Amino acid sequence: MPEGDLKITPITRLTRNPNRAEYDRDAVNQIIDATPLCHVSYIIDGRPYNTPTLQWREGDKIYWHGSSASRFLRQILGKQVCMAITHFDGFVLARSAFHHSINYRSIMLFGEATKIEDDEKNALLERFVDHLIPGRLQHLRAMTDQEAKATTVFSMPIDEGSAKVRSGPPVDDDEDYELPIWAGVLPISQTLHAPEPDPKNLAGLEVPKHVRDYKLG
Amino acid sequence: MPEGDLKITPITRLTRNPNRAEYDRDAVNQIIDATPLCHVSYIIDGRPYNTPTLQWREGDKIYWHGSSASRFLRQILGKQVCMAITHFDGFVLARSAFHHSINYRSIMLFGEATKIEDDEKNALLERFVDHLIPGRLQHLRAMTDQEAKATTVFSMPIDEGSAKVRSGPPVDDDEDYELPIWAGVLPISQTLHAPEPDPKNLAGLEVPKHVRDYKLG
Repeated sequence: MPEGDLKITPITRLTRNPNRAEYDRDAVNQIIDATPLCHVSYIIDGRPYNTPTLQWREGDKIYWHGSSASRFLRQILGKQVCMAITHFDGFVLARSAFHHSINYRSIMLFGEATKIEDDEKNALLERFVDHLIPGRLQHLRAMTDQEAKATTVFSMPIDEGSAKVRSGPPVDDDEDYELPIWAGVLPISQTLHAPEPDPKNLAGLEVPKHVRDYKLG
Repeated sequence: MPEGDLKITPITRLTRNPNRAEYDRDAVNQIIDATPLCHVSYIIDGRPYNTPTLQWREGDKIYWHGSSASRFLRQILGKQVCMAITHFDGFVLARSAFHHSINYRSIMLFGEATKIEDDEKNALLERFVDHLIPGRLQHLRAMTDQEAKATTVFSMPIDEGSAKVRSGPPVDDDEDYELPIWAGVLPISQTLHAPEPDPKNLAGLEVPKHVRDYKLG
């Protein structure tokens, strides 16, 4: 990730430069893969909506899912959506109010939502669980046809969008560095805490390895 | 926050019931105040956009800001926007793939973006810093007119939207509770780490009290 102030990286433009594209695609993929949380925005009856949901990536495609009964999911099929994925990495405390900022990594992806059907969908949903919590799927009871029907999966290619990253210390006006003001960064990260067993777990069940080993990001 | 499965709380509808509204408005305010990060979606040329930015609340209004040079900010004046604020509180590991979920608190607000001008804007921008990092403003050099001009502040009333919260253990199908599958929650929270002083700080500056005392959320 570049240090310093905002960097805007148009994904599409960079694919014209093979070496640069590879670097940037890796950076984009790292931002996407570091959290399942995303916000999908879309238009219904001329008004913008913005829904948090879970995404996962396979190669150059991004997937997200939801209830087949959802008004939002029925409306976006074949429509333009904009998906945002953002990591809040800390407060940036500068010497002036104006140069205060946050450190973050963010992706904005544009595309048309394509619905995944039938066998491909069922396989994707199973892989989704293993994307979220690697190693968990094999321990679960099998998915039923009814459950698969109740779930809609959408996909879009990762080929249009932008990445913005800010990291590092504040960037102040030259003359402000003379001021006796403490400046710096208050770093923030997502932290995983000890697993909380379901009170309804059968007696004697130990926390399994795939749960003990889980790492964020 | 309610325990169990998703709860959808239409903010507008609940204001018709004074007692319930008060409870829900407090819950909504807590979700808003616990992070400055939000995603604002809006429409430009018939396409949805979704931009992460910082918000703060004063009473029944929500504010956000950005560069006056930004294409996005110039376009949304007087237009409908949808702001989402989401906290990702953990993975919910169920006994079936279908009932896997996440714990979260989320707010979706709808409204028309109003631009704040002149003196009101300057006062708001200063209060914004003290909203983000209480106690910091008094230590900073004063904001210049040029800096205020370079910043646009928008506002909308908090009166139309919805809140969704999921907390607590997984909710499985009745018969699945007999299965010897470990289920539970992997809790996640945002964590603050030790302040990182700017390498360009003047020698001898100590970490000030407002930085040492800062608490997330």
